[in-house]
Amino acid sequence: MEQEMENDTPIEPPARADGNTVFIGKKGTMGYVLALVTQFNNGAPEVVIKARGKLISKAVDVVEIFRNRFMATTKLKAINISTEELTSEDGSKSKVSAIEIIVQK
Amino acid sequence: MEQEMENDTPIEPPARADGNTVFIGKKGTMGYVLALVTQFNNGAPEVVIKARGKLISKAVDVVEIFRNRFMATTKLKAINISTEELTSEDGSKSKVSAIEIIVQK
Repeated sequence: MEQEMENDTPIEPPARADGNTVFIGKKGTMGYVLALVTQFNNGAPEVVIKARGKLISKAVDVVEIFRNRFMATTKLKAINISTEELTSEDGSKSKVSAIEIIVQK
Repeated sequence: MEQEMENDTPIEPPARADGNTVFIGKKGTMGYVLALVTQFNNGAPEVVIKARGKLISKAVDVVEIFRNRFMATTKLKAINISTEELTSEDGSKSKVSAIEIIVQK
């Protein structure tokens, strides 16, 4: 049962930024902090950080480092948690927790 | 720099419940789900789940499992993230991300 919740499968390839969304994957934490900095420097009014499974902790690290070192005026518009169902290649299904943190400049 | 954020030190011994707070430690996920169920069964109107470092992911798992399997009517009053400074036995300091999830019956 617990194993079901420990799936680290990234939603997308690491550090991919889709629109104003940063998907947390297996790259180093600072790479995602940089992605966040870049999005705001490119004029995004808000950026959504998404992560699943054990990568949720990294998502929180990314936002905290960003707030503490790069943009102290940052506001967190919302933090949402949910459960997503994954289907693996062999068709079996498992559930994984997910987080979404909406950061505003 | 990233290592600073990866400290898993639990705030308190595993599964300790202090007042209406459940501190996430190194025990299995279901133990903390049970702690949450117990607190509500004992009449608590709300329970605060706290975790640090990599245990943040487990905190989200605990709340999601609780919501999905035990109390579908649960409301999340707030999800707060922060950075805490830890002092180790040798006096050195490190920073660690933290999460606080306030669950209402």
